Amino acid sequence: MCANTFGKNFCLTTFGESHGTAIGGVIDGCTPGLLIDFDKIDEELKRRKPGTYSFGSQRKESDEIIFLSGIFEGKTLGTPIAFVFKNDDARSSDYDDLRRVLRPSHSDFTYQQKYGIRDHRGGGRSSARALLPCVVAGAIAKQILQKHNVAINSFVTQIGEEKSESFSYDQIKDILLKIKQENDTVGASIRVEVDGLPAGIGSPYFRKLQSLLAQAMFSINAVKGFEYGDGFRAASMRGSECNDAFINDNGKIRCKTNHSGGIQGGITNGEKVYFNVAFKPIPTLMRPQQTVDVDGNEIIYDVEGRHDVCVVPRVIPIVEAMTAMVLVDLMI
Amino acid sequence: MCANTFGKNFCLTTFGESHGTAIGGVIDGCTPGLLIDFDKIDEELKRRKPGTYSFGSQRKESDEIIFLSGIFEGKTLGTPIAFVFKNDDARSSDYDDLRRVLRPSHSDFTYQQKYGIRDHRGGGRSSARALLPCVVAGAIAKQILQKHNVAINSFVTQIGEEKSESFSYDQIKDILLKIKQENDTVGASIRVEVDGLPAGIGSPYFRKLQSLLAQAMFSINAVKGFEYGDGFRAASMRGSECNDAFINDNGKIRCKTNHSGGIQGGITNGEKVYFNVAFKPIPTLMRPQQTVDVDGNEIIYDVEGRHDVCVVPRVIPIVEAMTAMVLVDLMI
Amino acid sequence: MCANTFGKNFCLTTFGESHGTAIGGVIDGCTPGLLIDFDKIDEELKRRKPGTYSFGSQRKESDEIIFLSGIFEGKTLGTPIAFVFKNDDARSSDYDDLRRVLRPSHSDFTYQQKYGIRDHRGGGRSSARALLPCVVAGAIAKQILQKHNVAINSFVTQIGEEKSESFSYDQIKDILLKIKQENDTVGASIRVEVDGLPAGIGSPYFRKLQSLLAQAMFSINAVKGFEYGDGFRAASMRGSECNDAFINDNGKIRCKTNHSGGIQGGITNGEKVYFNVAFKPIPTLMRPQQTVDVDGNEIIYDVEGRHDVCVVPRVIPIVEAMTAMVLVDLMI
Amino acid sequence: MCANTFGKNFCLTTFGESHGTAIGGVIDGCTPGLLIDFDKIDEELKRRKPGTYSFGSQRKESDEIIFLSGIFEGKTLGTPIAFVFKNDDARSSDYDDLRRVLRPSHSDFTYQQKYGIRDHRGGGRSSARALLPCVVAGAIAKQILQKHNVAINSFVTQIGEEKSESFSYDQIKDILLKIKQENDTVGASIRVEVDGLPAGIGSPYFRKLQSLLAQAMFSINAVKGFEYGDGFRAASMRGSECNDAFINDNGKIRCKTNHSGGIQGGITNGEKVYFNVAFKPIPTLMRPQQTVDVDGNEIIYDVEGRHDVCVVPRVIPIVEAMTAMVLVDLMI
Repeated sequence: MCANTFGKNFCLTTFGESHGTAIGGVIDGCTPGLLIDFDKIDEELKRRKPGTYSFGSQRKESDEIIFLSGIFEGKTLGTPIAFVFKNDDARSSDYDDLRRVLRPSHSDFTYQQKYGIRDHRGGGRSSARALLPCVVAGAIAKQILQKHNVAINSFVTQIGEEKSESFSYDQIKDILLKIKQENDTVGASIRVEVDGLPAGIGSPYFRKLQSLLAQAMFSINAVKGFEYGDGFRAASMRGSECNDAFINDNGKIRCKTNHSGGIQGGITNGEKVYFNVAFKPIPTLMRPQQTVDVDGNEIIYDVEGRHDVCVVPRVIPIVEAMTAMVLVDLMI
Repeated sequence: MCANTFGKNFCLTTFGESHGTAIGGVIDGCTPGLLIDFDKIDEELKRRKPGTYSFGSQRKESDEIIFLSGIFEGKTLGTPIAFVFKNDDARSSDYDDLRRVLRPSHSDFTYQQKYGIRDHRGGGRSSARALLPCVVAGAIAKQILQKHNVAINSFVTQIGEEKSESFSYDQIKDILLKIKQENDTVGASIRVEVDGLPAGIGSPYFRKLQSLLAQAMFSINAVKGFEYGDGFRAASMRGSECNDAFINDNGKIRCKTNHSGGIQGGITNGEKVYFNVAFKPIPTLMRPQQTVDVDGNEIIYDVEGRHDVCVVPRVIPIVEAMTAMVLVDLMI
Repeated sequence: MCANTFGKNFCLTTFGESHGTAIGGVIDGCTPGLLIDFDKIDEELKRRKPGTYSFGSQRKESDEIIFLSGIFEGKTLGTPIAFVFKNDDARSSDYDDLRRVLRPSHSDFTYQQKYGIRDHRGGGRSSARALLPCVVAGAIAKQILQKHNVAINSFVTQIGEEKSESFSYDQIKDILLKIKQENDTVGASIRVEVDGLPAGIGSPYFRKLQSLLAQAMFSINAVKGFEYGDGFRAASMRGSECNDAFINDNGKIRCKTNHSGGIQGGITNGEKVYFNVAFKPIPTLMRPQQTVDVDGNEIIYDVEGRHDVCVVPRVIPIVEAMTAMVLVDLMI
Repeated sequence: MCANTFGKNFCLTTFGESHGTAIGGVIDGCTPGLLIDFDKIDEELKRRKPGTYSFGSQRKESDEIIFLSGIFEGKTLGTPIAFVFKNDDARSSDYDDLRRVLRPSHSDFTYQQKYGIRDHRGGGRSSARALLPCVVAGAIAKQILQKHNVAINSFVTQIGEEKSESFSYDQIKDILLKIKQENDTVGASIRVEVDGLPAGIGSPYFRKLQSLLAQAMFSINAVKGFEYGDGFRAASMRGSECNDAFINDNGKIRCKTNHSGGIQGGITNGEKVYFNVAFKPIPTLMRPQQTVDVDGNEIIYDVEGRHDVCVVPRVIPIVEAMTAMVLVDLMI
C-alpha cells in the first residue's frame, strides 16, 4: 500500500500540494448505484472552510469541488470517483521567503531530509489543506453509513486548559479570540461517538477496529494522542471498576456499562463506540521564532498574514471523515 | 491485507489459539544472510513468560520455539521464517465450564457475534499467548535494528494510581502483590524510547510513523491509549510553549527541545522517538462477576486458577517487539 | 488493494470513464528529485493517439495532459503525481442509442450484472481510452529505467494470419487497410524485449516477475494470452532441448541459450527478458451484429462512425508502459 | 503484500524449504463455521504425491498434514488455519554435491544473486514440494466453491508433441515412460474449465479475473504460458469470427458462442470459464549437463536418484488449487 492510499475495500488515494495546481482524491470501491447528495458534501466542506471566524486563516479558497469520474446521472458507478479542488488563491511569490526556512515543528526539515526536495509554499503536501480530499471521501462514506443507521457525532471537549462536555461554537470563538490576542496558538481535544454500529465490525489481531481508527486519526496533522473507551484513565483503574458486565436487556445481550468503548477484542459489541483525539497547538505563531535555514544558519522566522490559532473547529469534519471511512471500509 | 498479517516489507503472519495444537508465525521479507542470535530470541521470550512472579499466571508453557523454515546453517535465507510453539499445557477439559460463558470485557461475545463460532478455551485466538509470535518477530527485528545502532528502551511509568519515571521490577512486584491480595487487577502505562533513528523514516499522510506505531500498539490486547511526544498534554498547551526550535548543533541541524517526540509530518527528525501506551486492567478477576451465557441467561462467573493481575511487566517485550517491527518495516 | 491501483512501491491509481469529465491517474511512490522529460511523455501519448492512420478511429482527443501535483519546478517531489486528460470530444448524445444495447464481446453486460449501473457512452470505464493514464505512468517509469540503463523494445509479430519478426508501420498499415475494406477487425501479437536488467529482480513464489508481468498484461483490454521465454512452445519440447546451460563468459556467469526468457525461479538472471502478448480482434465491427438489449430483447446492433480495426499499433505504448511499471516497482 | 502471501480476502501465506524442517501454510480469511472434509484434502494431496508412477520421483514424502490452528471440533473458526508437513525424508547429506553447483534452468543462480545465500538441498524454497501448501488451501477453497455449485475440471491436452482433448492417466503413463527411457523430460499443457460461476465475478482494470488467474498460474513452477478463451489463436482471428453474440435463452441473457472464455471486461458473464496453461519440461535430466559452479568454474552436472519426467499429472491439483483460491478470494 502506498503512503497516500487509505483503506482496503473503500479506498481513498489523495494528492496535491497546498499551492500546486490542485489537490484532490480518488475513491475506489464505493458502493455502486448510490445517489450522491452533493449538498451534504458541500456542508462538510463548509465546516472545514477557513475564514468563517474573523480571527481564523483568511485564505480565500474556493473549496469548489469538481467531480471527474465515477458518477453518472447523479449515481455512483462503482468505478473510481475522482475529484479535484483548484488552488485558486495560490500566490507562490508570497512564499519566496520560506524557500529556505525550516519552520519550527513543521515538516519542512523532515521532508527535506527524506526527499531532498520540497514544495515550500504553504507547507506543500503537509498543509492542512491537503486533508480536504478526506472530507469528501468521508462525506460519501457518511451517506453509506446513514443507510445503515450509523451516526457519527463529535464534541470539542478541551481547548488549552479549558474543558467541557462539549463547547458551543460561541464558546470556542471566545476562547480562541483570547488566545489570538496573545499572538499564540493552542491545543485541543475532540470526543467522537458512533451510534448504531452492529456487533461484529472489526477483526482480531492487526485489523482491530481501534487499530484502524488510531491509524486513521494519526494521519491527521497535529494529532498527538488517541484513546478509546476508558483510554489513559484505564491505566489508573482496577479491573473490578472497569469491567463491563453483560446483562440480558429484554432478550438482547448488552453491556451494563461501557468502559470498553463499544469494542472488545477489536470487534464492536453493539454499544456506542467512542474515543478521544488530542491535538497539539498549531505551530505557526504570530510572533518571531528562532530556527535555522536549510544550510543550518540560525535565523529568526516571523510569519505574516493571518493563521488559525487552533485546529478546532475546522478539524472536526476531518476527524469524522476518517472515522466514516474506517467504518465503511469494514462494513462494505 | 488479511487481519493476521502485519507489515508491508517485513511481514509477520500469526496464527494459533491459546489451547489449539500450536501457535506461531511466519516472517516474510527478513534480510537474507542475517546470523540469528537465538539466545536473544530466548531472552525476549523469557521476559514474557508467565510464572516468573509467584502471584502471576502459573500456566506451565514451555515457550520452546521450533523454527520450521527460512534459516539455514544459522543464517536467514530471505525466504519465509516460520516458527511454532506447541501448546503443551493445554488441558481442554479445564475449560468446559467456559464453553457457554461470555466473560465480561473479554472478546467471547464479539467473536461469537462475528463468526458464530469460537474456541472458548483460554480465550482462543484472543488470548494474550497468541501475541507470542510478535515477540519472536520483534526479537529478529531488533537484531536488524541493532546493526543500524537503533535501540528501543521501555519503562513502566504507571501501575494503577502509582506513577514513576520508571518502576523497578521489585517495585512492580510490591504493587502487584498488594492488588492481588485484594483479588483485583490493575491498569498500567508504559513509556517507550527509541534512540538512534536517522531522520527520514516514515512517510506523509496515511503511513506516518505515528500512524503505524499506533496501529501496532492497538493490536496488543488491553491497550486503550497511545500518545507520542507531548501527547494528550499537548491539548492544554500553547504553541509558544511546545514548538521545537531548530538550532545548529556543531554543524548539525537539531531541535532545541523535543515536544514533537522525534516525528514531524509523520517522518523522523533524528531526535529521540518516544511514546506512551496505556493498558486497562486484566479483565479476569479472582472474584465472582455478573455476566450472561451464550443464550443470554444471567449467571455468576467465578474463575479458578491463578491469573496475572496486570499486563506489566510481561507485556513489555510485546510492546518493544511491535515497535521494532514497525521500524524495520520502514527501514529495509 | 483496490481494483484500480497497481503496484506495491511505484503505485498507479487510475480513474475515468471514456465520456465522463476527465480521465487520469495518481502515481504514488515515484523517486523524488527526478527531472521529468515532458517531451518523452508526449511522445508516448502520441504513439497511442487515434487518427494517425486514416482508417483508424477518428475521435479527436486532445490527449493534452495536465499535471496537478507532485512536480515542482520540473522535478518530482516524491509526493503523489496526479494528472488528468479532459474528455473534450465527448458528445454524450451520440451514444444515446447505446444506452440499452449490450454490445457483443464488450463488457456492457458484465458491468451491468456486477454493478447494476453503467456509463454506456463509449464503453465508459472499459474504454481503451481509460488506459491512457498507464501510458503516462509508464513514460515516467521508463525515465527511471533509463537511468538504470534498462531498455524496453517491442515488435508487432502477428496481425491476423500474417506473421513477421517485426512488422514495419507501413506493413501494418497495408494489412489493416485490407481488413478495414472487409468491414472486419483482426487480432495481433506483440513481442516485448527488455535489455539491461541486472540479475536478482523479482521474488519467489507469488511475486515472480512473470506473475507480475502477466497480471499487468491481462489488465490491458483485449489481451487473451501471455507467454515468456519458450512459452507455449515449451509444452512440446524436451528438457534436453530447452535447458539453458550456464557458462563462464570472461569471468561472468551467463546462459549459453535463453529459453528461460531471462527469468529463473521468478527472478531475473541477467539475460534478456522477453515475452509475447496476444490480442483478440477489436469487437466493434463496421457491420450489423446480432445481440440483445438490457431487457433481453434480441436486436441488431449496427455501429456508426469510424473505429480501429486492430489494437496494434496503438496498444504498443500501453504494453511497454505496463512493463516499465512492473520493473520500476520491483527496482525502487 | 509480501512475496509469499496470495490473496486479498482469502489469503494464503506459505513457507518452507524442500529439505528444511517442514513446509506449510497459513490461510487467513476462510469462512467460519465450515465443516472441513479432511478426506477431500487428503485426496488432493494424494493426486500430487510422488511415487504413484513407477518412473516418477521416488522420494518418500509422508505428505501427512498436521493442522495447528483455526479448526475447532472439525469446523473453521474464521481465524488463521495453519498447517505443516514435516520433511521426513530429508537427507541433507545427499545434497552436499549440489552445494556449489548452479543447475541449468533451475533457480540456484538467481537465488544466489538475489539473496547471496541459498538452501541448496533439493531446490530449497523453489522446490516443487514447496507448492504443497497451495494444494491444501485449494482443497479448502474447493469446499467453499462446492457450496456455491462451482466446479473446476482440468484436462491434460498436450505432452510434448502429443496432443489430445484429454489424455487418460494410462495414456499419460505410456507417453512419459517413453520419454523416461530416453533419459529426457518433456513439457505439457493443461486446460482448465470452471462451471457454475455466476456473472459478476472479477473487477475492471487491474483486478480482472484473467489478471488474477494469470498471476496465480505463473506462481507455479515451470509455467511458461497462460491464455484464456480463444487465447493465442485470437491473434490470427477476425472480429466477425470470434465475437460472442448475446442471445435470449428462455428469458436469460446468454452468449451464443464462448470465444471470450466466460470473461468480458475482467468480469464473468455466466458462461464456462476456461483457460490453458503451458509448462516447460522439468529441468532435472537423467543425463550429464554442462554448467558452472558458484565460482564460475565450468563443470559437468550429473544428477542421481529418480526424478519426474513431466510436471503432469502431479501439477494438476496445484493448478486447480490456485484456480480455486482466486475464485474464493473474489467470491467471499
